[in-house]
Amino acid sequence: MPFRAPVTEFTFLLDKVVGFKHVAETEIFSEATPDTVEAILTEIGRLSQDVWAPLQRNGDTDPAKLENGAVRTSKGFVDGFRALADGGWLGLSAPEEFGGMALPGTLTAAMNDMLAASCLSLGLNPLLTQGQIEALEHHASPEIQALYLPKLISGEWTGTMNLTEPQAGSDVGALRSTAKPNGDGTYAVSGQKIYISWGDHDFGGNVCHLVLARLPDAAPGTKGISLFMVPKYLPNEDGSLGDANSLRVVSLEHKMGLHGSPTAVMEYDGAKGWLIGEEHKGMAAMFTMMNNARLGVGIQGIGAAEGAYQHALAFALDRKQGRTVLEGKPGATGAIVDHADVRRMLATMRADVFASRAIALSCAVAIDLAKATGSAEWKARAAVLTPIAKAFGTETGMRVAELGVQVHGGMGFIEETGAAQYYRDVRVTAIYEGTNGIQAMDLVARKMMDGGEAVYALIEEMHTVAEAARGQYDTLAEPLWQAVETLREATEWMVSQSDLNERFAGSVPYLMGFARVLGGYFHLKAALAEEGEGPRSRLAGFYISRLLPEHVGLLAHATVGAEDLYAMSVEDLSA
Amino acid sequence: MPFRAPVTEFTFLLDKVVGFKHVAETEIFSEATPDTVEAILTEIGRLSQDVWAPLQRNGDTDPAKLENGAVRTSKGFVDGFRALADGGWLGLSAPEEFGGMALPGTLTAAMNDMLAASCLSLGLNPLLTQGQIEALEHHASPEIQALYLPKLISGEWTGTMNLTEPQAGSDVGALRSTAKPNGDGTYAVSGQKIYISWGDHDFGGNVCHLVLARLPDAAPGTKGISLFMVPKYLPNEDGSLGDANSLRVVSLEHKMGLHGSPTAVMEYDGAKGWLIGEEHKGMAAMFTMMNNARLGVGIQGIGAAEGAYQHALAFALDRKQGRTVLEGKPGATGAIVDHADVRRMLATMRADVFASRAIALSCAVAIDLAKATGSAEWKARAAVLTPIAKAFGTETGMRVAELGVQVHGGMGFIEETGAAQYYRDVRVTAIYEGTNGIQAMDLVARKMMDGGEAVYALIEEMHTVAEAARGQYDTLAEPLWQAVETLREATEWMVSQSDLNERFAGSVPYLMGFARVLGGYFHLKAALAEEGEGPRSRLAGFYISRLLPEHVGLLAHATVGAEDLYAMSVEDLSA
Repeated sequence: MPFRAPVTEFTFLLDKVVGFKHVAETEIFSEATPDTVEAILTEIGRLSQDVWAPLQRNGDTDPAKLENGAVRTSKGFVDGFRALADGGWLGLSAPEEFGGMALPGTLTAAMNDMLAASCLSLGLNPLLTQGQIEALEHHASPEIQALYLPKLISGEWTGTMNLTEPQAGSDVGALRSTAKPNGDGTYAVSGQKIYISWGDHDFGGNVCHLVLARLPDAAPGTKGISLFMVPKYLPNEDGSLGDANSLRVVSLEHKMGLHGSPTAVMEYDGAKGWLIGEEHKGMAAMFTMMNNARLGVGIQGIGAAEGAYQHALAFALDRKQGRTVLEGKPGATGAIVDHADVRRMLATMRADVFASRAIALSCAVAIDLAKATGSAEWKARAAVLTPIAKAFGTETGMRVAELGVQVHGGMGFIEETGAAQYYRDVRVTAIYEGTNGIQAMDLVARKMMDGGEAVYALIEEMHTVAEAARGQYDTLAEPLWQAVETLREATEWMVSQSDLNERFAGSVPYLMGFARVLGGYFHLKAALAEEGEGPRSRLAGFYISRLLPEHVGLLAHATVGAEDLYAMSVEDLSA
Repeated sequence: MPFRAPVTEFTFLLDKVVGFKHVAETEIFSEATPDTVEAILTEIGRLSQDVWAPLQRNGDTDPAKLENGAVRTSKGFVDGFRALADGGWLGLSAPEEFGGMALPGTLTAAMNDMLAASCLSLGLNPLLTQGQIEALEHHASPEIQALYLPKLISGEWTGTMNLTEPQAGSDVGALRSTAKPNGDGTYAVSGQKIYISWGDHDFGGNVCHLVLARLPDAAPGTKGISLFMVPKYLPNEDGSLGDANSLRVVSLEHKMGLHGSPTAVMEYDGAKGWLIGEEHKGMAAMFTMMNNARLGVGIQGIGAAEGAYQHALAFALDRKQGRTVLEGKPGATGAIVDHADVRRMLATMRADVFASRAIALSCAVAIDLAKATGSAEWKARAAVLTPIAKAFGTETGMRVAELGVQVHGGMGFIEETGAAQYYRDVRVTAIYEGTNGIQAMDLVARKMMDGGEAVYALIEEMHTVAEAARGQYDTLAEPLWQAVETLREATEWMVSQSDLNERFAGSVPYLMGFARVLGGYFHLKAALAEEGEGPRSRLAGFYISRLLPEHVGLLAHATVGAEDLYAMSVEDLSA
């Protein structure tokens, strides 16, 4: 059973669960009619099934290699990328004046999901270019925009982001790369950057590096960081490729997975760069790119989960092993899917893919609505949902890929089966673009600087829906109603802690508990959208009775505070 | 910071938590005095630190290879195995008459833990030999015992177990390998076996395969299976190696991890074999070996968790990243261990290593006491604890290795760091020796055939200790007391389901919830063993306030029943 793009799942979610119609009702997104949306998702779905899915294993068996200083990508990746670019899909949500389609980011989110599900390692490439397009759109000079945006949008060129240095990971303010004015408006950028995804490739065109570096008079920390465009080849005035810039790929990392995505150590040696945005304001520009990328990485986790789920389901429908309780009864397949525990694992995978995808798409809808309406409420909603979408999406990727291996039994541990690749590949998504720990700290600190207003608004929305569904849908609504109240109490505890470290001591379980409740909310909405009891209600029932209860333990863990952590000495931990 | 064998942790657990003194008080184990125990564990600890730990990375970077039909093992593995054998440690719990030390299996459990922590892939080898020794001790003829046991115990020869065939994994009864009487008391064994760990090596001596096969007149299913000893070389009467037997390694599997452990596809082509135990009673004999191995595999998970924990702690004590709340305060290290979320991850790892290790050692103690006293109660206790020790030990291995990667941030995904290896290696432990799903089904079905008596006895023990500790140790005892009651209710629900499939629909979360409560019990015992509030109480407090609450969600999930699973159709799952 080859990969099937879940197009009907997306249209259901958009129509019935995450309120996409509000996006389509805005002026700037009025072209996103149901017909257009379906046509676009169907077309991208076909691309992901027919062109990208066959590349998935190549990314692992024929990893990207550094040969004579240049990266040679996995077999078929050049064509896969070209097919995406030629469809115009890189510019799906990019400005029309530079060749984009200016359609809602929610559609790009759905696209990224399908690309991740079909080939995670190649799917990281457009994610970076999308982020760069957005950063340039908001922060670059008109000249830079005119030169770079059309080529990034057409896929003639691609983009990267260069933040990390060996001593500066989560602490990006510790970076040391330098930029010195050349006197002609350009800068000489020097330094070493690590973990540069898609730092080079053989897709042709230019590789456009956005590099964080310090100007000579820069303050220490994040306030002294500026952003520069440092292309692999210096563009001529007509946009053709000129001389090679003074930068090189030093090496590629040997990673646990995602071998189709070249992760470069980059060396900049007085490379020519152009300032993006204002001096010393590089972090703001970079955050534009990172915010986009955070949602994108969450969606990578969800896509990988979708791929791992379909892969495991196909195995469970085929593999025969032992007698099952269904033997001789209607609906029996004779395969291991008939065993209760296998079915429980598969339903868990499916229910969590739905929950995490609904969270991510509702985040994308909020971003679109903030852009379309300028509403502070939608902006705040997007800000709250972004770290949850990132961390829970990637957590779901890990959990589902782990279950996918388990469903396969012994074969899951054999590389040729392919289940192990999902497990290895997706692991990094919980780390890059801000570890899930960093996401959780963002949620309980920065995203609660409003006194919890935005979080409470979301809780109130869930409360209202659960309240209205009581009575008719009691088995679903009642447990959710209770869970929302527990989340409210945990949130009140968080907001009341003036010492942020008290919050940080439980921020990850808080985020995960929050996601569990949100997932229940979206499952309830899906069930409510169905006439009578159908598959949506059944899956919602499964989630609410079996997975939602995890919020109890998570939110208890979330609100313990920091005292016990620091009562433990380093000697305690080391003894 | 290189690996340090947790010898003091073992002596604390044995002395204060799992009641090892009752083992030492029995006649057959009277030599296991505290001095002897400490001397032995110290010696094995030294071996694991100095000889085995340096081999861990070799297992990954220089995997076992099949060369001209024979397996060449990782660099240094021959010497590592020899050092273990020369210490006499393979026979630590083997019968004295064949050269063993006849010491409690609990000490072998502790040894296996340290060997797994220092080099998981090599550590699998003695585990198999230990199981074979036990199977032969209980089921083989005196002639076979006299020939094989001294050489297995000395490590001159090693053992394997051959169950799985392509169509017969969890469903072992589906196996097709055949054995035909040769007329001279031996048998001609034919068939293909897969996933044969350590099916060949270059340690010298013989490789002794215990092979499940069917006699010509065998009934279908597990009742028609017999067990045969099929050695690589046919032994001469004096025990020297004779002709090669008609068997060969067809290939080695390409696995996600554990590359130092060769996983062979074995072909038997009329190979000469000797019946072990009675005709058609092979499963009983194999279960002796598997029961031992199940605990052993659980301990592999715990050992791998110990290794991953120490590895992550060393990184967290060294890596500097950002300002922390401790800056300028007493106890500050300036490293990431000072961050609340990093400390939370490390404490989680440590608390779960303790919990899973206490469960495994208490299982080993029960096995020893059953053997020493013949008590049915201890036998039943061991039977209940074995699947929990296996599944929770390996689950802990996965969770802790995952956190170990996370603590490392981006470096965790880079293979050279070593954190990823723990994550990949340990994954198979949740699958082999009976998947964790199979363990959970065993717990709720076979281990409750007594109407839950053995489980209730354990619950009652926990209840009594929690009850006694109320008042003085309320913050620990009260939540545990409640959790024990919740476990009792879930157990009552399980026992009351006459349809086993209702139990199976929640067996994995039941087992995991059970383990969470048991872990709390052992943490409480550790705290009670301490005078005043020290590191044990602090860790117990961490576990009970943050991890124990997970039992609520798990036990709710456990008791939903099967209806919702089968209300979902295959079409629901595939849509």
